[in-house]
Amino acid sequence: MSECRYQYDVIVVGAGHAGTEAALAAARLGAKTALLTTNLDTVAQMSCNPAIGGIAKGQIVREIDAMGGVMGQAIDATGIQFRLLNRRKGPAMHSPRAQADKKAYQWWVKLAVEDQPNLDLCQEIVSDLVTETVDGKQRITGVSVHGGAIYAATRVVLTTGTFLAAIMHIGESKTPGGRGGEGTSSGISNALNRLGFRLDRFKTGTPARLNFNSIDFDKTELQPGDEDPQPFSYLTEKLTLEQMPCHITYTNEKVHDLIRANLHRAPMYSGQIDSRGPRYCPSIEDKVVRFADKDRHQLFLEPEGHNTREVYVNGISTSLPRDVQDEMFKLIPGLENAQIMRYGYAVEYDFCPPDQLWPSLQTKEVTGLYFAGQINGTTGYEEAAAQGLMAGINAALEGRGEEPLILGREQAYIGVLIDDLVTCGVDEPYRMFTSRAEHRLMLRQDNADRRLTPLANERGLITAQRWAAFSSKLEQIDSALETLSTTRHQGTLLSNILRRNDSTWEQVCELAPQLSGISDEASLQVTYDLRYEGYVARQQVEIERQKRLSYKRIPESFDFTRLTQMRTEAREKLGRVRPTTVAQAERISGITPSDIALLLVYLDGRMGSKTS
Amino acid sequence: MSECRYQYDVIVVGAGHAGTEAALAAARLGAKTALLTTNLDTVAQMSCNPAIGGIAKGQIVREIDAMGGVMGQAIDATGIQFRLLNRRKGPAMHSPRAQADKKAYQWWVKLAVEDQPNLDLCQEIVSDLVTETVDGKQRITGVSVHGGAIYAATRVVLTTGTFLAAIMHIGESKTPGGRGGEGTSSGISNALNRLGFRLDRFKTGTPARLNFNSIDFDKTELQPGDEDPQPFSYLTEKLTLEQMPCHITYTNEKVHDLIRANLHRAPMYSGQIDSRGPRYCPSIEDKVVRFADKDRHQLFLEPEGHNTREVYVNGISTSLPRDVQDEMFKLIPGLENAQIMRYGYAVEYDFCPPDQLWPSLQTKEVTGLYFAGQINGTTGYEEAAAQGLMAGINAALEGRGEEPLILGREQAYIGVLIDDLVTCGVDEPYRMFTSRAEHRLMLRQDNADRRLTPLANERGLITAQRWAAFSSKLEQIDSALETLSTTRHQGTLLSNILRRNDSTWEQVCELAPQLSGISDEASLQVTYDLRYEGYVARQQVEIERQKRLSYKRIPESFDFTRLTQMRTEAREKLGRVRPTTVAQAERISGITPSDIALLLVYLDGRMGSKTS
Repeated sequence: MSECRYQYDVIVVGAGHAGTEAALAAARLGAKTALLTTNLDTVAQMSCNPAIGGIAKGQIVREIDAMGGVMGQAIDATGIQFRLLNRRKGPAMHSPRAQADKKAYQWWVKLAVEDQPNLDLCQEIVSDLVTETVDGKQRITGVSVHGGAIYAATRVVLTTGTFLAAIMHIGESKTPGGRGGEGTSSGISNALNRLGFRLDRFKTGTPARLNFNSIDFDKTELQPGDEDPQPFSYLTEKLTLEQMPCHITYTNEKVHDLIRANLHRAPMYSGQIDSRGPRYCPSIEDKVVRFADKDRHQLFLEPEGHNTREVYVNGISTSLPRDVQDEMFKLIPGLENAQIMRYGYAVEYDFCPPDQLWPSLQTKEVTGLYFAGQINGTTGYEEAAAQGLMAGINAALEGRGEEPLILGREQAYIGVLIDDLVTCGVDEPYRMFTSRAEHRLMLRQDNADRRLTPLANERGLITAQRWAAFSSKLEQIDSALETLSTTRHQGTLLSNILRRNDSTWEQVCELAPQLSGISDEASLQVTYDLRYEGYVARQQVEIERQKRLSYKRIPESFDFTRLTQMRTEAREKLGRVRPTTVAQAERISGITPSDIALLLVYLDGRMGSKTS
Repeated sequence: MSECRYQYDVIVVGAGHAGTEAALAAARLGAKTALLTTNLDTVAQMSCNPAIGGIAKGQIVREIDAMGGVMGQAIDATGIQFRLLNRRKGPAMHSPRAQADKKAYQWWVKLAVEDQPNLDLCQEIVSDLVTETVDGKQRITGVSVHGGAIYAATRVVLTTGTFLAAIMHIGESKTPGGRGGEGTSSGISNALNRLGFRLDRFKTGTPARLNFNSIDFDKTELQPGDEDPQPFSYLTEKLTLEQMPCHITYTNEKVHDLIRANLHRAPMYSGQIDSRGPRYCPSIEDKVVRFADKDRHQLFLEPEGHNTREVYVNGISTSLPRDVQDEMFKLIPGLENAQIMRYGYAVEYDFCPPDQLWPSLQTKEVTGLYFAGQINGTTGYEEAAAQGLMAGINAALEGRGEEPLILGREQAYIGVLIDDLVTCGVDEPYRMFTSRAEHRLMLRQDNADRRLTPLANERGLITAQRWAAFSSKLEQIDSALETLSTTRHQGTLLSNILRRNDSTWEQVCELAPQLSGISDEASLQVTYDLRYEGYVARQQVEIERQKRLSYKRIPESFDFTRLTQMRTEAREKLGRVRPTTVAQAERISGITPSDIALLLVYLDGRMGSKTS
């Protein structure tokens, strides 16, 4: 039997939200890339809610788009309800969210992958990781697949989602598999164990899907989308798909009583599952227990698209047994006769605690191997896509000997996300919040392009078309700021007028007609630049301090055990996380200013620690 | 643990082409129906070629449509290339065929299922069949599913496709599973064994899928669709989807040499598979062996839809190892650099030899249990859908104590199909051909409605809309025939003028302007009625003879072992097939006229055989 060998620069395993962005990014950078998935019909599938964005997550999608990723364009092309959340709060809280036509979204991304030069999309079942050991250090050389073939590459990105040693739970019933009707990936779990990775287990869950025709919408509240829906992508000029409303209903005390009476049958409470689930996206049984005083919980009835009657019931994720799910819906207004098309379930899966990663998302254990998405203990399509994008970029860059692209916490939510993961690890499925970003006033959804598109352009990640559109916007901003800071009205500079919260762009336009040519997008930037100047300046002081510490690089091979004068606990923590900068070391929980002072002394060579 | 029990009239297991038609038909007849599938995302999936219809198969689709099934409307709504095959031959050979936008087809059918009243589509994994024994006779009472629930019904239709104890083969590599990336159904195989069914194994195969962008179409021939594409459904007024061309290329001696050199590695030749595959849809390795003198074989490059770059390579189905598949394409004009997205594979699966069925598709072994589709040893979406339709109809009818609907061989290809299956069994995967129908001149694609819509209407299978359209067409035909047979031109009846092959409808219209209001569909019927009157009359004689024998019913409980004066071989054959009419008995291979004469004597009671 002859062995087939296919040579690539980068191989991406798994074609979900992380894998597709990873493969597209690597291919865009010119790496010959293979994207391997067990089933071509599940590329970019939305396994849980049929929506993209939301609080802090919408900002991430804008950042992915600003760097040339596809998630924003995909949802713009296939979104059926767009809403800007937190519209009444300040601009740092504005978060775009959209319902997707679930299947249309999936095929849009698959087509983008199929059309990407340098990228081969292949249906393959990966059975093992292939490595070699050079100078005592493991490095990846490829993956083997069912049917006796090797996909060879010096850079491999794993995006295995919930499929590693996966078990699905519905009440007392357990089935191997990472998603309804699909299997699990045991070969990769075994390989990771063999290579010395620490694995841990998380669980996540999903609610039932109901048939639209069986719901009595008269008993629910209508939730329409925005009247002026805003696209996610800086490239989208107009949203064209017909919009659909969602509906809202509520649980009640009877539902909660039913759940309480059956708690002992919920896998999370019976002891059948002991791994942790996402605290901020709790199952309905968790909500009933943790918020015992609430007499109702809101449920969103979200249509899954124009060409299906499946309705996602957002807010009632559960792994309670089917008879409880049956009874539960009978007690909820509008859902009394609802037909359950798919039952809710929980899934338990392996992940690799992400303190085993460098900030490039390359693993410390195996050179050339990258992890992105749920394998790193995160939850959410957006978090996955962001990691996929960065892992794909860095696999391509490091594969040709270039510096990885590491985003700072002050540059992007993506920077916060990855720094949190690699510095602090995770003790529950990690999702993004605005509160995680200490510089969130600067990390707004509106300015993602100004923060990231120049960086992306430097690394060759974006098209000429995107760069031209962005450059033109920058010119408008500069020209408007120039006009505003040089034109006066009744002795007051227009910039000072616009700084006032009760003024509008239209008012200053009347005073300086030359501003009327400025696009809405550019005028928004100008307004925010002026109004938040003070806050931003104050944040900038802290950012500069952090940056100075970031310049203090710690070599990958730095031997923390030699820090004999440091407290044992601090030394062990540093040794485990292996921070790449002093700034990162400072953020590790339990590391004190005096530990950092000591570290700086060693790094400056003043105490002669051997750094090989 | 409380057991959930869901009560239905009819349960259909499997939601492919057979299962969806079965469930829709039963629900249309008012039966409360559940359609269970392991994965809602694969409902009506086209596992092999992205096309509907073809020679004899196109006729079946027209028949399904004439009886209210959905296959015709589904392909009309989603077809991307329509061709009427055998256009230059006589009308009995005209066979419609269309390429589908594969995913659009699937979602169209799923939506039709979701919107059908009385029908619940549920994602469930069936783990066992539940039966009881009454008076020594087994009867179905429901199915059990993963998660501890029973779907209860006195009528169950099994449409398991290739998923029973399925094994996929790519060269030397074997994987359990009925389709790429999916699993297998072992619970049902075990249940069928336990219930006493004979199981046998068949194999089928599929070719590789290539990326459109990697094909050099300049080296291929263009194959456009018809300029005036004709719909499949009698209800479709206009085809609206944008059409796409196919392309043609060829294998060559180098390809054949490569295959011959690797034949020992093909599972069918190495002995790894010993079940039989479809003789008339052979793999490329079969073609090279069986047609050794041919120096090339035609390959059709069929796009799988508007929103995908996957291209189906019709004509090169194979289970050769992947390295041979890789090399094979490199030698084919236009495909030298083709990227393989999915490799071709063979799948081996269990089926139940269909002589275990009554003509209603109910099993003889277990009352209330019906089989349809590949489980009966057939191949083809159309054959599956036809059986599904009839099984669904008969499950609903017999469930409420009515006579089953059995189509005669002179009424429909569907009648031929089911009679062949239950009378003769199968020794290779069964597909339909025009040559299987002895009355094919009457079983034309154009007159499927006249043959079947009245029958379907009697049983309540079709909508008032369809009946009104059909009735109006009949009136036009009658009125036109009346005019033609009473109007003369230069002494010759117009009907005699139209009978001549060189005359046209337009010519007689000029002679009798009142005909100009007749629709194209009706005028075609009038023309064929007149031209084939003689043939049809001659066929009618044989049909009448058969009918007389069909009126001689043989009771289900007739004990053939009591026919002691009959040859042992004939007695055994009759006892195994248990024909329900003398006409069916006559068609069993090896049954002679004298066996039939003897059987008639018994049935007339002249020899007092006990028939309980």
